[in-house]
Amino acid sequence: MPMPPLLLVLDLAGTFAFALNGALTAVREARIDIVGVVTLGMITAVGGGIIRDVLLGAVPPAAFVDWRYLTVAAAGGLLAFLFAGRLNRFASAIDVLDAAGLALFAVTGAGKALAFGAGPLQAIILGAVTGVGGGTMRDVLIRKVPGVLSSGLYAIPALVGAALVAVGESVEVGPVLGVPVAVGAAAVCFLIRVVGLHYGLDAPRPPGTDRAGSPGPGADGN
Amino acid sequence: MPMPPLLLVLDLAGTFAFALNGALTAVREARIDIVGVVTLGMITAVGGGIIRDVLLGAVPPAAFVDWRYLTVAAAGGLLAFLFAGRLNRFASAIDVLDAAGLALFAVTGAGKALAFGAGPLQAIILGAVTGVGGGTMRDVLIRKVPGVLSSGLYAIPALVGAALVAVGESVEVGPVLGVPVAVGAAAVCFLIRVVGLHYGLDAPRPPGTDRAGSPGPGADGN
Amino acid sequence: MPMPPLLLVLDLAGTFAFALNGALTAVREARIDIVGVVTLGMITAVGGGIIRDVLLGAVPPAAFVDWRYLTVAAAGGLLAFLFAGRLNRFASAIDVLDAAGLALFAVTGAGKALAFGAGPLQAIILGAVTGVGGGTMRDVLIRKVPGVLSSGLYAIPALVGAALVAVGESVEVGPVLGVPVAVGAAAVCFLIRVVGLHYGLDAPRPPGTDRAGSPGPGADGN
Repeated sequence: MPMPPLLLVLDLAGTFAFALNGALTAVREARIDIVGVVTLGMITAVGGGIIRDVLLGAVPPAAFVDWRYLTVAAAGGLLAFLFAGRLNRFASAIDVLDAAGLALFAVTGAGKALAFGAGPLQAIILGAVTGVGGGTMRDVLIRKVPGVLSSGLYAIPALVGAALVAVGESVEVGPVLGVPVAVGAAAVCFLIRVVGLHYGLDAPRPPGTDRAGSPGPGADGN
Repeated sequence: MPMPPLLLVLDLAGTFAFALNGALTAVREARIDIVGVVTLGMITAVGGGIIRDVLLGAVPPAAFVDWRYLTVAAAGGLLAFLFAGRLNRFASAIDVLDAAGLALFAVTGAGKALAFGAGPLQAIILGAVTGVGGGTMRDVLIRKVPGVLSSGLYAIPALVGAALVAVGESVEVGPVLGVPVAVGAAAVCFLIRVVGLHYGLDAPRPPGTDRAGSPGPGADGN
Repeated sequence: MPMPPLLLVLDLAGTFAFALNGALTAVREARIDIVGVVTLGMITAVGGGIIRDVLLGAVPPAAFVDWRYLTVAAAGGLLAFLFAGRLNRFASAIDVLDAAGLALFAVTGAGKALAFGAGPLQAIILGAVTGVGGGTMRDVLIRKVPGVLSSGLYAIPALVGAALVAVGESVEVGPVLGVPVAVGAAAVCFLIRVVGLHYGLDAPRPPGTDRAGSPGPGADGN
């Protein structure tokens, strides 16, 4: 996987944003020590890609082959440990960075799955898993029902971004992910996520459960 | 793994039953949206087989090689999302379907492990994991102590079914799972599960903990 | 991996100690039946090594290749099931055994990672994962924030032991883990763990969160 330099820089930036945001969430939600903060930041950042690579049989996973991923992820987690109080003031900016990371991971995840011979359905799922898998693992470890299953628009933009990659690949020629397709898919994923954040949109709930004790969007604590 | 057509149909039916039952359980126990319901149904259906395949080194897992598994699992989850209220009336019928899925998964899981060269002890464990792994992952994601660890007879019929396969294979000749052994093992697993459901049987608890705050079988909420 | 006999005996002893301690913890913290106790003991004992082997691509994992690991782990879990009440009296002795298991697993885990071509950073992480991964999986299954993330010194001695192996290997010659390095690294890991246990030491918490509702070390329930 000799990655083009721009993609590598973007991938490391996404890893850093995920680690920072993941670790800050963990600090807010659970009583954990430095090991917990850094570990949960790292898991948020590289967990989704590791699940994708294990399911593709692409082991050791990319995060374990190139030491820069683990280093950048650890740095993001450590920064969150040291400056959690001050960084929480920049929550909106970090959310936007995180949305960029989600877009990037969903698109590159689907692209890697296709490059390893997965079909379009599998590539869509593995792209979304790359984007949301790490945060889900973090939430399980801090004993939270994963946000991706219960509220907000997080999986849906990832699925849409990954699906655009799968569709784009099927009409394009060539073995590598085309740049226009990748950029377009990532932009759509990013936009849906940011619009969802801004308006507090939620995915539909099972019919008949919406009224039962739910005062409205945003009230997803249980 | 060119599977005989009858086994493929049974396997897809088991996948559908697991996805439906898994998603209905998730709707009852947690406040989740459409992404959560469908995802948890799919994880219940294919999670155990994925763990088995990863541990056998048979990657990509079967569920990612043949698109019909993920499609059938997603359909089961979507049906649960749309008709959760009405389907809960058929809970007993769905439980029986689920028991059939458990029997099938335990037997085919143990058979696949043996076919990949695993020893009998490993095949028993991997057969049981195929049957109970997906539901365990679902329970962890909705923040429940997995039912398989705490109440009811669920792992035990799976272990018995898988053990019968391992014993049967060791006395038989031939590289593939013999049909009489498979049918007999699945029938025994299914019967233990259904009898356990009907009489509300539980596996033994650690000595000295039975009285402590336990009003009796069925009262396993904590 | 033809292991020297002494290392095999030590590894099986560590597996037994982890299973016993892991199952006793599970009995204390959750209402589970015999399947749960034995399963959680086995997961505590072999879970970390399985994660390491899956991430290294060394599948099937060692625990599934040599039946003695699963057997010894099941025996530890069963013993905990039968004698939970009486064994709790020996909690300190079992904690020391567990510390020895942690030291052994961290050191052999890092050694195996290096032998499979992992870099030093990855070997340190995979050594620590070998030591703490199984207990983390157990805690998630019984719905506890994993102790390793929140309190006590558990990951830190494992990281130090694994780091000493990685450093030792980089200055030594030869393809296998040198005995002096391994023994020294294990001893340091064991000592830090036992001293941490004895004095109730905790890793640092995020600045500003220490005072908030924390009456002091040892009060880590939430």
